[in-house]
Amino acid sequence: DAEKAVAQGRGILAKNLNCKPKELIFTSGGTESNNLAIKGIAEFYQNRGKHIITTKIEHPSVLEVCQELEQEGFAITYLEVDHLGNISLEELQEAITPETILVTIMMVNNELGAVQPIKDLAAIIKKQGKAPFFHVDGVQAMGMLPIDLQELSIDLFSFSGHKFHGPKGVGGLFIKEGVQLVPLLDGGGQEKGIRSGTENVPGIVGMAKALAIAGEAREDKAAKIRALQQLLWNGISTEVADCKLNSDLVIGAPHIISISFPGIKGEVLLHYLESEGIYVSTGSACGSRSRNISHVLQAIGLNDKEADGTIRFSLSVETEEADILYTVDKITAGIKELRLLMGR
Amino acid sequence: DAEKAVAQGRGILAKNLNCKPKELIFTSGGTESNNLAIKGIAEFYQNRGKHIITTKIEHPSVLEVCQELEQEGFAITYLEVDHLGNISLEELQEAITPETILVTIMMVNNELGAVQPIKDLAAIIKKQGKAPFFHVDGVQAMGMLPIDLQELSIDLFSFSGHKFHGPKGVGGLFIKEGVQLVPLLDGGGQEKGIRSGTENVPGIVGMAKALAIAGEAREDKAAKIRALQQLLWNGISTEVADCKLNSDLVIGAPHIISISFPGIKGEVLLHYLESEGIYVSTGSACGSRSRNISHVLQAIGLNDKEADGTIRFSLSVETEEADILYTVDKITAGIKELRLLMGR
Repeated sequence: DAEKAVAQGRGILAKNLNCKPKELIFTSGGTESNNLAIKGIAEFYQNRGKHIITTKIEHPSVLEVCQELEQEGFAITYLEVDHLGNISLEELQEAITPETILVTIMMVNNELGAVQPIKDLAAIIKKQGKAPFFHVDGVQAMGMLPIDLQELSIDLFSFSGHKFHGPKGVGGLFIKEGVQLVPLLDGGGQEKGIRSGTENVPGIVGMAKALAIAGEAREDKAAKIRALQQLLWNGISTEVADCKLNSDLVIGAPHIISISFPGIKGEVLLHYLESEGIYVSTGSACGSRSRNISHVLQAIGLNDKEADGTIRFSLSVETEEADILYTVDKITAGIKELRLLMGR
Repeated sequence: DAEKAVAQGRGILAKNLNCKPKELIFTSGGTESNNLAIKGIAEFYQNRGKHIITTKIEHPSVLEVCQELEQEGFAITYLEVDHLGNISLEELQEAITPETILVTIMMVNNELGAVQPIKDLAAIIKKQGKAPFFHVDGVQAMGMLPIDLQELSIDLFSFSGHKFHGPKGVGGLFIKEGVQLVPLLDGGGQEKGIRSGTENVPGIVGMAKALAIAGEAREDKAAKIRALQQLLWNGISTEVADCKLNSDLVIGAPHIISISFPGIKGEVLLHYLESEGIYVSTGSACGSRSRNISHVLQAIGLNDKEADGTIRFSLSVETEEADILYTVDKITAGIKELRLLMGR
């Protein structure tokens, strides 16, 4: 019964992503998927070349792995981004050398919502004969943006259940047929030997169900969230003097919006909003233990004052217009109060 | 709230295992814990020496890792076991060299129930000045046997939630204060940087609750399970001619019993029992995809015919006397039928 449930879950996910069920393996989440994809390719194909291309705004589970590979003798190119987190296609093109074995670029940035044009990137990466592999961290995209793995012509795609209302502790990795990886976990040989360990059966079932639900009327839901995102920015930009939008509300993801309030301590604003029942984040939620200034906000060119006063709002299908209006009110009042306290 | 729930779970586990909460990190299960412990020590301390000692009957998530390390230039000693899966303390003592950085030995064997005397092993391992680290795969022991990590004086201890009625997809690793590891997963720096990735909050909470429940009247429950184990063997050995016990019903674990029926195909007996509502295993459940003869059954000296006809029964606190009597009846009838079909 457990085996059937896992197979059914894999089938649901494969159908939603337009890939073959056997091209999906299950992991403990996005971090493991990213680690497995990048280390797995680097180790398996290092004889072909030791150059990897990524961007300056990847998730720590990509950047830290790249930094570790640098210590093992790999060369890593970190692509720059513009003020909204978009990379340059020309820069990517120029970065590719015969030594490049892997390009790893996220689909949606977790702090800004910036969406990279994956299909265009794939076209650039795959136009050579012996093209590098292309890994996409899709953790923030899945369930929200349309994803067709056949059409995208990428080799690896990471995802995480709880990012689309599935359970925590489970994720997956798409591995295109024929692409090989050195496993991170050795043992009983589950998942065709690529990921040993007893399968997280309830997690897999829950994640598949969550994606199926997210896929129902996805476009309508995304449009509703987009409207809320615009309502939030319109409200804040009208009511609060001196604030700066770090997200693209047209081509960016609808569910993430980053706003800087220069001079305000983001941490203080966060706690003020928390006391009003509004839960936001400074920088990346995933790195909430770190006190450093976000590498993403540095990469888009914010100065320390702006970066320190930056708040990320996350919206979902469960967010209502009233939540947005309430948030605008509280933000407006909070910023005024904080600026008054600071003598501005 | 999630952070508090995780901290509370860690506290419950630490109290039950008699260690400090900060000495416990959470993983996706036993396989990840074993991989992290062994690879993590090997990589961090390889300058001290490149020799590791283990046994021939470890779980694949230990043996496969050791085999991989052999390819990376480590020397591995695989200790022999006797006909019930017990190692020799003298052989362990002799195997330790100044180059030995790690000894990794399981507490309870998953196919036989053999219990190694961890405290005695630790005494041997730790009697030198620059003693090797001692990792114990406790996956099959936790919740069933008494475990006091202070008293055992070991350095690393792996466990898995679903082995003591917790959820699948979550486990943990005890890492004694001061012992260092190279992480397997890099990223957001959760679990003090040793295990990045969003915490499996419901899994952790469920695992802690399960261990707390398992700890209540543990000795009474173990005694009840031991009585059922003996009842099962008494019944089978009385009713079925030509069968062989591979478990020690006195010093072995109460919840695992391995019996060989030479000449019977274990796989056939398994399916017969399944049709009667009895779920057993041939060899290791974890490696159920593999058609090979169990390395454990080979290590205890079974010939191919015996190994091929070996069934593992797993008992738990939910097993009742009526289940045992029913199983004895069905086994007896099944073996008779199968032997008749085979002309014996």
